[in-house]
Amino acid sequence: MVLARTKVTISDVAKAAGVSNSAVSYALNDKPGVSDATRNKVLRVAEEMGWLPNSAAKALSDASTKSIGIVFASKPETMAVDSYTMELLGGLGTELEKNGYSLLLRFASDRNRALDAHREWIASGSVDGVLIHDVEIGDSRIELYRKHPEIPALVLGAPSLAGGLPTMYTDDAAGARLIVDYLHELGHRHIARVAGPERLGHTFIRDRAFAEETSAMGMYYDCLHADYSPEEGGDCTIRLLTFPERPTAIVYDSDSMAIAGLRVANSRDMSVPNDLSIVSWDDSFACTAVTPPLTALWRDIPRLGNRVASLLLKLIAGEHVENTSESPYELEIRGSTAAPSVISNE
Amino acid sequence: MVLARTKVTISDVAKAAGVSNSAVSYALNDKPGVSDATRNKVLRVAEEMGWLPNSAAKALSDASTKSIGIVFASKPETMAVDSYTMELLGGLGTELEKNGYSLLLRFASDRNRALDAHREWIASGSVDGVLIHDVEIGDSRIELYRKHPEIPALVLGAPSLAGGLPTMYTDDAAGARLIVDYLHELGHRHIARVAGPERLGHTFIRDRAFAEETSAMGMYYDCLHADYSPEEGGDCTIRLLTFPERPTAIVYDSDSMAIAGLRVANSRDMSVPNDLSIVSWDDSFACTAVTPPLTALWRDIPRLGNRVASLLLKLIAGEHVENTSESPYELEIRGSTAAPSVISNE
Repeated sequence: MVLARTKVTISDVAKAAGVSNSAVSYALNDKPGVSDATRNKVLRVAEEMGWLPNSAAKALSDASTKSIGIVFASKPETMAVDSYTMELLGGLGTELEKNGYSLLLRFASDRNRALDAHREWIASGSVDGVLIHDVEIGDSRIELYRKHPEIPALVLGAPSLAGGLPTMYTDDAAGARLIVDYLHELGHRHIARVAGPERLGHTFIRDRAFAEETSAMGMYYDCLHADYSPEEGGDCTIRLLTFPERPTAIVYDSDSMAIAGLRVANSRDMSVPNDLSIVSWDDSFACTAVTPPLTALWRDIPRLGNRVASLLLKLIAGEHVENTSESPYELEIRGSTAAPSVISNE
Repeated sequence: MVLARTKVTISDVAKAAGVSNSAVSYALNDKPGVSDATRNKVLRVAEEMGWLPNSAAKALSDASTKSIGIVFASKPETMAVDSYTMELLGGLGTELEKNGYSLLLRFASDRNRALDAHREWIASGSVDGVLIHDVEIGDSRIELYRKHPEIPALVLGAPSLAGGLPTMYTDDAAGARLIVDYLHELGHRHIARVAGPERLGHTFIRDRAFAEETSAMGMYYDCLHADYSPEEGGDCTIRLLTFPERPTAIVYDSDSMAIAGLRVANSRDMSVPNDLSIVSWDDSFACTAVTPPLTALWRDIPRLGNRVASLLLKLIAGEHVENTSESPYELEIRGSTAAPSVISNE
């Protein structure tokens, strides 16, 4: 039977005390970040309002929430063209379900609100573990979970970005070399890339690897950064093709940007692959549906989701988890890539 | 501080008592469905093991879980080509976040396990409300939540399928008429449809509407059912085009099946739209990416997600919610539809 008692939330305490939600969370969890005066005020107000920490109440009956938390900080419109996320969630959720675990999702409008959501989870103990994806360089979430080892966090990203937290990672530098070497072998000497957002750790790692490998191969290499949307993908393509010395191949960091690039090429009466080769970093159904189908870097994303779930469950069980690498990328060669035509790049 | 106390779950009690999880749930929640002997045994074992209902413990500090539950019963591979679900989750999650609510997701391998997940939520009180989607005719989930009004459930589907539970629905019959009337006006007299799974309520509603409207217009109409996968979409297309009297237009119940159909037509040297018109029921980025781009039935899915969230929050607040209809479908006319060529259908 559920008693009809009104919940006192962190927000209620914050409003009554006239401070921010974060200040309340810090104060109630005895963490640095608020002055002693604020801390004392918060504790007094919370006590008066009858606030009880969820985690304490939870421990009465249940040391586990049986859920894994993920916070998204992207627009619904961007997520709609993002087959990677849906495949990852499917693989993750299926494996968690076998162990009686659920996924708890939050959709924040920006990075700061995403961080607030993580702070709330830490304060309330609403999840047994979290997955941190789309890691930025110097990501505040890493620092946060380093300070809160009581909630195990797995980073989906390179160990160099994870500040010592356990990671599941793909060798993106190897993926970049796979593409560059393939295009070089076809005869391309000037390639370009429409990359993802510059602040993301995996974008930076790919940026470096592309620059190094093209340089080692003696190729010209241009790079523009976009937000993964088809709009920006198309716009960057126009900019790249407007240079008098234009690339003979463009690599895109997402399938929807690659398809937008294909559309730009078609609208300029450029033939793909004869006038321009196109490679998509992530493979998808859409890559196979367009004409010509796109050469793409493939990995088994549902399986990645399964493995991420297993590692998180190990962490929750208190086991030690080594940094684990995904199975390597494979290049699916399709109709969008070929040797450059001899008259190109003049 | 979380005490390191081991949780006693419904499964633990079930194992110790030698009965099913459902039997434990029924017994502990004082519901019919188990014999008195089993009920007494379960209650005795649960008490011995120190089981505490989550909902009672929760009420000590917190009458609300601040989460909405959704159970998926589809394969990760199918979800990966399903842009509808990702858009819906994005719209739903964004609106919930504004109200401090999260989404709790479970991924069941089939319908029976999905039902078990709902039963567990009812027993444990882990969600404040649920969304029921992909409703079947005579769906067991409807009956379950009718018996458990303490957890508000919103049905994403027609009121005729919802057994009196509140619904958010689209007028799928009107969508079907929109497509049929458009194709009739172009001059098509024999059309076909590759529909979704026959057991789904919205498939049945569309089946009826297509049959009625084509009959009213004096058109021939063929219909095959598939599982939304590109494979079955392609296979049904081959079967439809093999009839000596073949349709001049095919309507598909999903974008990925429509794209698979386009590929089959191309592989048989049939020109779309001259030899065959193609319409996709759900619009997507992929529909605009293929050549020719696909005529499609459009609706604002992120906004639908927002509205579903608002209705669920109202239900949780104890307000009455009327059956609410989505904004109607619109037909996005693109290059995949045209008048049938005169020699067709001989």
